[in-house]
This record gives sequence, structure tokens and C-alpha cells, in this order.
Amino acid sequence: MPELRCDPVTGNWVVIATERARRPESYVRQKEESKSENTVCPFCYGNEALTPPEVMAYREPDTGPNTSNWQIRVVPNKYPAFAPGATCPPLPAASGAGRRELGSTSPFCRSMGAVGFHEVIIHSPSHEKSLALLPEEQVVLIVRAYKDRYLALKKDGQIKYILIIVNHGKSAGASLAHPHSQLFALPLLPKMPQEELLRCARHHQNKGSCMFCEIIEEEKKQVARLITESEHFFAFCPYASRSPFETWILPKRHNASFETITTAEERDLAKILRLTLRAFYKSLGDPPYNLYLHTAPPSAEDFSQSYHWHIELFPKITLQAGFEMGTGIMINVVKPGEAAGFLRGFKDRED
Amino acid sequence: MPELRCDPVTGNWVVIATERARRPESYVRQKEESKSENTVCPFCYGNEALTPPEVMAYREPDTGPNTSNWQIRVVPNKYPAFAPGATCPPLPAASGAGRRELGSTSPFCRSMGAVGFHEVIIHSPSHEKSLALLPEEQVVLIVRAYKDRYLALKKDGQIKYILIIVNHGKSAGASLAHPHSQLFALPLLPKMPQEELLRCARHHQNKGSCMFCEIIEEEKKQVARLITESEHFFAFCPYASRSPFETWILPKRHNASFETITTAEERDLAKILRLTLRAFYKSLGDPPYNLYLHTAPPSAEDFSQSYHWHIELFPKITLQAGFEMGTGIMINVVKPGEAAGFLRGFKDRED
Repeated sequence: MPELRCDPVTGNWVVIATERARRPESYVRQKEESKSENTVCPFCYGNEALTPPEVMAYREPDTGPNTSNWQIRVVPNKYPAFAPGATCPPLPAASGAGRRELGSTSPFCRSMGAVGFHEVIIHSPSHEKSLALLPEEQVVLIVRAYKDRYLALKKDGQIKYILIIVNHGKSAGASLAHPHSQLFALPLLPKMPQEELLRCARHHQNKGSCMFCEIIEEEKKQVARLITESEHFFAFCPYASRSPFETWILPKRHNASFETITTAEERDLAKILRLTLRAFYKSLGDPPYNLYLHTAPPSAEDFSQSYHWHIELFPKITLQAGFEMGTGIMINVVKPGEAAGFLRGFKDRED
Repeated sequence: MPELRCDPVTGNWVVIATERARRPESYVRQKEESKSENTVCPFCYGNEALTPPEVMAYREPDTGPNTSNWQIRVVPNKYPAFAPGATCPPLPAASGAGRRELGSTSPFCRSMGAVGFHEVIIHSPSHEKSLALLPEEQVVLIVRAYKDRYLALKKDGQIKYILIIVNHGKSAGASLAHPHSQLFALPLLPKMPQEELLRCARHHQNKGSCMFCEIIEEEKKQVARLITESEHFFAFCPYASRSPFETWILPKRHNASFETITTAEERDLAKILRLTLRAFYKSLGDPPYNLYLHTAPPSAEDFSQSYHWHIELFPKITLQAGFEMGTGIMINVVKPGEAAGFLRGFKDRED
């Protein structure tokens, strides 16, 4: 009998349908031949002029902006989904005739300018090395860049939410091969983090506690879904995992806002993130994945007690098809406990 | 400047980011070499014993169940996501020790049996012909089968929602090539249709009208996003389309419940559905797509005035990556008006 599980944070249900289950081993991916790209990579040394001018970089002393010899480089996305701008540009006036797409002249055509920022955080000068393969020191710099850009952009009064993501692998949406993160600063609080925030706030109101802190306690007690832990973080497959090997990384210290992590937490986050991604890489054969960081919105006073920032990692192993799109319910064919067990089996050897 | 658009039905925002737009023509798909399958197809004539026993079929007189010579055959899914069963099976008792995945012993581990039905509606005896290529008469039979199964399953008191879908093409999730639909009968009302139902109910309460009926009027007035219409239906690209060429098919007559369509509407739905899918097929080179039918839940009294059943068609052209997963906001790089214009350009020739 398949089983429905409810995610306490989002309220979303998933189906755990083990009838069609394959063993975790069967998800190990055969590596694709990496085709040599013929195009010039705008994220490699020497090609700095191919991106919009950098907004931040960690670089060797005495090197000028938009030259080589950087460790981390942050540039605006060349094709931004969100772009700076005072207000929504005036929409074309309504005209009765013609096959013309009208703006917000109807209550059913609500629109606003996608004002904000869309930045690319280039992980390192290496065109090849993904987060799992970079030295830990470099991942520390990436985490620090996340924090620095978060702190810089949250000052903008128009920004209602900031999301940092990684798309790893073509089928996870990476359109440029050179490893990078993306930061989106939005003029609205999107529905998905909003629902998490509101549900956690309600839980705090009812129980006086942070839901994520309680989940950590529960996972420690149940053991089965833990993958690994470090001094400051836990990595585990959540009870209502939406896909095989979905993994959450939670800070042990209650903290709603990612940008307030300490230097020690920065280093430790780099460590556990890299370790978890190495488990993906080694156990599953470098699967494509999406990573996103959920944190409280810039004006977080209301959520400081109830929310708990975290990272969600989503290996792109199964498809969202008609059922998932029509219901919002995901079907997962591997039990999270089995998935975690499989990932725990990975023994890191630095090679 | 990219633009944020709000879908009035779901309240979801999308980004229309035309900066990275390609022309609609660039989405025309090069047909994949269809690799010959070596496995026996359980949906072809002669292989009826390879599926679970049929629950319904339209077949030649004097042919027995689970033999050949059927026009439409409906069978339980061999690997069901929802399966008949009185209640949730008892979950393993909590045990303090060991790496064992526990059940609902914690408030954070809510679970229930995925009780329900998961059926496959085999479109025709043809292993090759998708909905776009079948004769109209056959599509009428498929629509009739949808209705017949809906009416049969809604009688089950445990069923809170019924969803009918089509996954067309491997990358849209079709695991078996022989064209078929799937019907899911669920023990809960999923979040996605629930949100539509509630928002439409609120709109009706405030305005005294059906939101979908008003959207039809608005689309007729604005013209740009219409694709085609038939006697009883409209097909158009919605204002806040989540992906290039997203298409909705709406009945012109206000009606919350698909299963109450008339025989004339049945025939006409087959006609417009086939025509729209032929436009996809011919204009876009047979793209993979997901189709789902949103209708009021079985006990629909509360929604009969406010809701309006419809079909959503979602060509699988772009990926849902980290941003979409972390926010719930989709990025669409083709304006719906342009997409509709491109689909309108298709001239059907039966060949």
C-alpha cells in the first residue's frame, strides 16, 4: 500500500510509492561524456569583459576590477529575471482593437515590474570543479560571498525576499557549465517561503517553539534519516521527501536569518555542504541537482523566533509530470530512510 | 525590464523575462529518432494478460473482458500511487533504538494510507498514434471514458478528488510509449485544486460571478491570447502562462463539474482538444507535454456556482530549476500573446 506523508513545514503531501521502488543503487548515474564546448566561457580567467561589470570580487591585491586573478567573482546575470529599476514601466494603454497583448487594464491581468537583482556568484576560476570537488577553503569563500551579497542587497528597501540557488548539471537547469550560484532579490515574498514562514509562525504561536528545532530533535531520536552532522549542522533526508535523496541541511543553533551566521558557522557550513555533495557525487555518480537556501525575509523581526534558515538539496532524478503539476503532490519511490542509509554508506576519500 | 504577472485563479506569480527570449519558432522541436522498443507492450492487442484485469472497456460485441478487439480499455495501474484499501495499514510501533524509519509517532511524521484508485485509460489499440493523430471519433471515446470512470469512482465515499492526466513523451514522464491517460482518485483534496477552488469561491462571494466566465470575456475582448474556439469551448494561452505555449481549454457554459458535460460537449471537447494538440504537433514538432483536467471535487455542491472545470496543457519546453523550486514562481521567456499567435498560425491539413 503506498503511503501519504505530510511535510510539517509546508503542509504539502507526498506519496511514498514503494511498489514501483527500485533499490537506491539503481539511481547511480552513468557519467555522461562531457562534450567539449566550443564557445568561450564568460566565467573563465581572461574573459571578464564578456560579463556585465562585477559587483563584488575576492581577488589578489593590486588587481583591478574585471581583470583576472580573482578567487570569487559576482556579476549581474546577463539575462536577468529581476533587474534594477525605480518602478514598473508604464504599460501600453488599452486599445480596443487588434491582436495586442494588454497590460493591467483588467483585474485578471495583474502585473508589476520584476524589479530587483539577479546575480551570478562564480564559484572559482575552475571551469570544471563543482562544489563537491573544490577544496574546502574555496567553499568557505563561496559561503562568505553568499553572506556578503545578502547583506549588501537586503539594504534595498524594495527587496522583499532574497533566494540563493545552485543548479548543477544541464538537466537541473545549468545553462553555463562553469560552476556558479545565482542570487535572486525579489520585490515580493514568494508563495513558497511565505507558506513556510506562516506555518512556522503559527506553530510557534501554538507551541512556543521553533518547528525546525523540534524536527532536529525528532530526527536525532529516529536516527534512520540522518546522513551526517558537523559541529553546527545536521544533514538528513526529510520524512516527507519529495524525491529520492532529497536532503536538508539545518543549523543546530536556532537562527531565522542566514546572513547572521558566525565565521565559525560559515566554515562549518562549507564543510557539511561539501561533504553532502561529495556523498551525492560519489554515491550517485554526480547527479544533477538543485540547491536553494530558505531564510527569513530582509525585514525578519516577526520571524526571528519562529523561523529557521536552511538549505534544501534536490537531486534531479525523477520528473514532475501531469499528476505533480495538477495536484502539487510529488510521488517519491524511495523511502527517505533508505535514501539516507545509502548516502551514509559513502566513505570519503580525498582523491 | 522583465515583468511579474499574477495568475488570478491560483494567485501564483510568474516572471515574463523577454530579455532572454527566443522567437517562438526556436522552440520547434527536431523529432527524435524513435528507438524501436524491444519489450512487449502491455497495452497492445494480444497482451491483455500483461495488465491487471480491466475495470472497463468499450469493445466489440461478443468479445470477453481482457481479450482483444476493444476500442478503449481501462485497467488499474500495475504500480499504483493510490490503491484500494479500507484504511491505512497499522504503522510499525515506535521502538527507541536502531536505524528504523518510524511512522506517525511524532507530530512531524504525519502519514496516511494512499487509499484510492490509479487507473490507466488506453487511448486506442494503436501503439503509435497520440491524441493529435487519432481520428476525432476515437478522441470522443476517450472523453467518454473519462466521464464514465469519473462517474463510477466518485461514488466511493473515501474519494475526495479525481484528477485525469496525460503525460505525452518521455521527457514529460510517459514511461510507456503506447498513448494513454491516467486517472488518480485521491483520499484528500490536494493543495493545488484546493487553492483554485477557494480563490474562485472567494471571488464569487465578493463579485457574485464565476472568475473563469469573466476570464473568457476578457480574453475575447483582448483577442491576443486566443488560439481557437469551437461551439462549446475556448483555447487560449493564459495571461500568466508559466511556460511557453501553456494552453487552457475552457467550456463556454458555466459548469463546475466535468462529469456533467452533455453528449454534444463531449464531441466538441474531443474536437477542440485534438485541434489544439494538432497545433502543438504541427507547429512545435510534437513536443512532450502534460495535460490535466481540473474539476470540482466529487461533493461539489459548495463550488457549483463559483468553479469552472477546465483543461491545462503544459508543453515541457523549459525546466523547473532551483529558482522555481525555491519560490514557486516560474520564469517564462515567451509572452503568451506571441505564443498564441504562433499556434494560431497553424493551418490544419489532415494528412
